Amino acid sequence: MRFTLTKEFIDVLRQKYVEQDTSWFHENVLELHYADIAEILDQLTNDEAKFIYFLVDEDTQADILMELDEDVRDRFLASLTTKEIADQLENLDSDDAADILGELSDEQIHEVISQMEDDEAAEDIVDLLNYDENTAGGLMQKEFIQANMNWTVDRAIVELRRQAEDVEKVYNIYVVDELNKLIGLLSLKRLLFASPKTQISEIFQSKNIISVKTSDPDEEVAKIMEKYDLVAIPVVDFQNKLVGRITLDDVVNLIKEEADKDFQLASGISERIELNASVWRISRARLPWLLIGMVGGIFSAQVISQYENGITLVPSLAFFIPLITATGGNVGVQSSAIVVQSLAKGNDQIGSIMQKLMKEGLVGLMNGALLSVLIYGIAFIFASSTLGFVVSISLFVVVVFAAIIGTLIPLILHKNNIDPALATGPFITTLNDVIGLFIYFTVGMLLYQI
Amino acid sequence: MRFTLTKEFIDVLRQKYVEQDTSWFHENVLELHYADIAEILDQLTNDEAKFIYFLVDEDTQADILMELDEDVRDRFLASLTTKEIADQLENLDSDDAADILGELSDEQIHEVISQMEDDEAAEDIVDLLNYDENTAGGLMQKEFIQANMNWTVDRAIVELRRQAEDVEKVYNIYVVDELNKLIGLLSLKRLLFASPKTQISEIFQSKNIISVKTSDPDEEVAKIMEKYDLVAIPVVDFQNKLVGRITLDDVVNLIKEEADKDFQLASGISERIELNASVWRISRARLPWLLIGMVGGIFSAQVISQYENGITLVPSLAFFIPLITATGGNVGVQSSAIVVQSLAKGNDQIGSIMQKLMKEGLVGLMNGALLSVLIYGIAFIFASSTLGFVVSISLFVVVVFAAIIGTLIPLILHKNNIDPALATGPFITTLNDVIGLFIYFTVGMLLYQI
Repeated sequence: MRFTLTKEFIDVLRQKYVEQDTSWFHENVLELHYADIAEILDQLTNDEAKFIYFLVDEDTQADILMELDEDVRDRFLASLTTKEIADQLENLDSDDAADILGELSDEQIHEVISQMEDDEAAEDIVDLLNYDENTAGGLMQKEFIQANMNWTVDRAIVELRRQAEDVEKVYNIYVVDELNKLIGLLSLKRLLFASPKTQISEIFQSKNIISVKTSDPDEEVAKIMEKYDLVAIPVVDFQNKLVGRITLDDVVNLIKEEADKDFQLASGISERIELNASVWRISRARLPWLLIGMVGGIFSAQVISQYENGITLVPSLAFFIPLITATGGNVGVQSSAIVVQSLAKGNDQIGSIMQKLMKEGLVGLMNGALLSVLIYGIAFIFASSTLGFVVSISLFVVVVFAAIIGTLIPLILHKNNIDPALATGPFITTLNDVIGLFIYFTVGMLLYQI
Repeated sequence: MRFTLTKEFIDVLRQKYVEQDTSWFHENVLELHYADIAEILDQLTNDEAKFIYFLVDEDTQADILMELDEDVRDRFLASLTTKEIADQLENLDSDDAADILGELSDEQIHEVISQMEDDEAAEDIVDLLNYDENTAGGLMQKEFIQANMNWTVDRAIVELRRQAEDVEKVYNIYVVDELNKLIGLLSLKRLLFASPKTQISEIFQSKNIISVKTSDPDEEVAKIMEKYDLVAIPVVDFQNKLVGRITLDDVVNLIKEEADKDFQLASGISERIELNASVWRISRARLPWLLIGMVGGIFSAQVISQYENGITLVPSLAFFIPLITATGGNVGVQSSAIVVQSLAKGNDQIGSIMQKLMKEGLVGLMNGALLSVLIYGIAFIFASSTLGFVVSISLFVVVVFAAIIGTLIPLILHKNNIDPALATGPFITTLNDVIGLFIYFTVGMLLYQI
């Protein structure tokens, strides 16, 4: 029943495109859900995609367009004339239309807008273009349903029917006063089951109405919608006048992107990269972290070279270099990951930095002690009792240090309004390498009395 | 307007609790949104939390309970009698009630269920307990609204009003035939604006209805709801009979948890850990990865010890050990992170393993070449031209190998139905350390002709 895209399907489709077998497309593609059609179009060339796109009805075109991969959508739109783009925009929700326009040059925007037939829609879109794309204003759409508190249920249904034409998904009706200020909300369910002569003011909900301001940052919006379990949130201006709404599906993408971004930063990838990006772009996205790692490696080399003497006398000291750096790195990444997740959840109000440091320090002490005991035995068998002591003692110190550094650095970055996720990747590993080696060789020189 | 929890607020609240100043709580806590009250309760002791909890009305109690941190909720419920728990369950949605019961022992479940007064609710909950918690059945709730296709709009409104009492959020009405089989859906909006005598069968939507089976895995449900932009999805049994629905807020948590889990695995943390977990539990969650890292370190030591001779003759070879391991690790993590994200997005149908390997291999070649040229110059200044060649050549080989290994291992894990995210953390770093060192010293021995 559900569609699964396969390579075989694409192969057949390409063949049918060459044959221009329209009836095959009607039977096998146009009947699919728009999300599935978009998934197919993501795999095609512009010409193939256009062929299918202009076979589907207008409403579905709009849905497909918004489901396409960003890269694919950009190149697809670039292949359309401004008139064709203008036609597409008329079918889109205002927020989506504004997003698409935002990708174009100022000149193109003027051209597209001037070719739109629906003036009201054009005005909404132009208005949305004024907001910073990383704010609630940049996320919101102009399509929502509002009722005046003084209307009766009867009148509301008539008025709302007109409004509802443009609004795809209706969750709540926003209730406003005479000045258009948001004063509450009314669920469709409640309206449906109220008697016709009741006044809206008698049945709407006014307590604990959660809204956001146009200037609120988008991450804030995501957190609020998540915390309060909202599927849609009204957006107000500075006078508390209702100007738009944001729906959860727009925010789910944001939540996912945020999580993906943290994951990518932790993995040492500096830009968001589409899967089908070119080898060149992928390389570029990864190089910064590799270079940081290399600079770290050079510092490490510098540290070790100070102890060249020691290595000449006791070459087995070199054996445990990777163990020290790997363990320090792992501990640092673990600690920083916890701090980053806790900051991402907005749990930075409760509990001081000192408390977090104490806790991570304790965890470090426990794990450090356990690892030290284990490694003493192993290094002893491997080489000598002295080397066992050197590795064991320095590993313990390294683990504790790494835990503290891993906690402290993301906290410091956060205090200075830098994304703490920056600290989880190669950055913290590199720092811990250098510090760990210094500890290791210092302990080594002391115990071997070199 | 929105509430922000501060340490100061908690301090005042504790003071007011000691004074048993009920009116302060009425004014400053009970008026808040349930999500805010839950956030406060998360910070309190059981006794303090109970004091507030039993001041609020029953419906809000249910909402608060589901918003509490899992740990806090568990200990809070443990402090209630079975009768008190039974009372709480009556106010919860069936899916939430079943989740809570699922945490109790079989004996406690019997006791709680027998003390519930609403038999129908009890039956729903017991039924839900039969489903595996990681399936659609385990996620779904019994509260939904359905209409028979043969009803008129008039009759539907009467019938639905009765059904709607139990259902908090109504997005769509599910339309069924005489056998209770799901045949389509009807938006509240459409029902609201239809004329009273119309038949449901004339206005409902039957095309592209997306549903899940009770046995579908929860991750699959999340992917489908995300892909098709659904706020709720109907759940059917094997005969396509409608048995429940899943709402997006339950799935958003799942999506976030999934992303968090990948992030934690990549960071070397093996269990999901609450922020306020004990030092002991945190240590335990991290140890497995640290031990893997240590085993890797021992293997590395084993590899290096084979070249003890070389180090004695050319101690400066040891300088670049951390550079080799760090770079190999970074490249491996980058490659594996991309593969893991691509697999998580379900993009494994398109493009063969060979294509992915080729691409990552190419990226490795490019970055490896660049890093090699850079490091040659630096190592040359540092030590000698021969060492420059050794580091440069081996770094290049290591980067290419690491990129291939980082791509291959998660793909292999995925093929064998093991979570590929396992491969992103210490595991891949460790493997690359060992292989990288082997390459480095082999090249070193060759060029120094030892």
